[in-house]
Amino acid sequence: MNLLLQHIHQHSKLTADEDTLVLSNFKTKKLKKNEYLLRANEVCRYESFIIKGCLKAYTLDEQGAEHIALFGVENWYVGDLYSFLTAQPSTLYIAALEDTEILQIDKSTLDKLLTDVPTMERYFRILFQNAFVATQARAIEAISLTAEQRYEIFLKRYPNINQRIPQYLIASYLGITPQFLSKIRKKKT
Amino acid sequence: MNLLLQHIHQHSKLTADEDTLVLSNFKTKKLKKNEYLLRANEVCRYESFIIKGCLKAYTLDEQGAEHIALFGVENWYVGDLYSFLTAQPSTLYIAALEDTEILQIDKSTLDKLLTDVPTMERYFRILFQNAFVATQARAIEAISLTAEQRYEIFLKRYPNINQRIPQYLIASYLGITPQFLSKIRKKKT
Repeated sequence: MNLLLQHIHQHSKLTADEDTLVLSNFKTKKLKKNEYLLRANEVCRYESFIIKGCLKAYTLDEQGAEHIALFGVENWYVGDLYSFLTAQPSTLYIAALEDTEILQIDKSTLDKLLTDVPTMERYFRILFQNAFVATQARAIEAISLTAEQRYEIFLKRYPNINQRIPQYLIASYLGITPQFLSKIRKKKT
Repeated sequence: MNLLLQHIHQHSKLTADEDTLVLSNFKTKKLKKNEYLLRANEVCRYESFIIKGCLKAYTLDEQGAEHIALFGVENWYVGDLYSFLTAQPSTLYIAALEDTEILQIDKSTLDKLLTDVPTMERYFRILFQNAFVATQARAIEAISLTAEQRYEIFLKRYPNINQRIPQYLIASYLGITPQFLSKIRKKKT
């Protein structure tokens, strides 16, 4: 079964007809490695579910340095949810780290889908609830935990991603230098 | 009609039986002026819908100074949503600024209610979506807008609250001194 439908069925039981209707509202998009899904100052028009591949979402500081906000892999949504919901310009860049395939839905299509298939409300209620928790957790971690603790959480949050992502990007996600990340990794083994 | 049901009916159409069932899952609580609804380090066990009154949610810094995170008035929910959803200790204090009456629901009752009355999923999807947007907006405003602009947003967000809340608390919400708030207010008139 399609990865997106599997994901939805974890929370919302749909009929076969509803499965078909839901899928027809998402559009497939392919990104080559290094291609952008979103740039800062654009409005994020889509919620994007990752079928295959890996992306990074990041901000650029005034010196032009990347700060990784999050990674996305299979079974995750990527996008700037605030921008998507409010139609305000995004603060994020999102780019593919591998050749990537996503399923996209725009805001007005989503609004209509939720009216047409009310069982999907549960799925998106849980999705937005999780997005709220994840955003808060990331902010709390940044100010209250050590780099070692943040690395432990990273490994749990992205169990199979460690080998797919360059170490300097993981260091950026943790807010530390690659050298310091290397020290933490050596201590663990 | 009960204020909470009016609020729910803006998003979810319930039957009369469902109205009764929903209300039976909320418990009334009364707070005297200055009484606490929540203290930092406690788990926030309830989502609380305000029927009457006004509350402040705030953090305390290391010097013991209050920083207002938000106010709650009639038709708003108050609580620490992150703590409520994750059962992690709250970072917020919440206290009544007036004699206050709220309707409360705990997490397991809410989970059961959403299973029993699926039409309520839409209401809580929109509630969590709005909470996500509000939290992000508040963080973005704090770093990107001037005090004057934040005051304009405050007036729109809380249209009838200005006379109910001491000026020094509004200044704390805006992250400015009461003297500076007084200057901004004089400029506007």
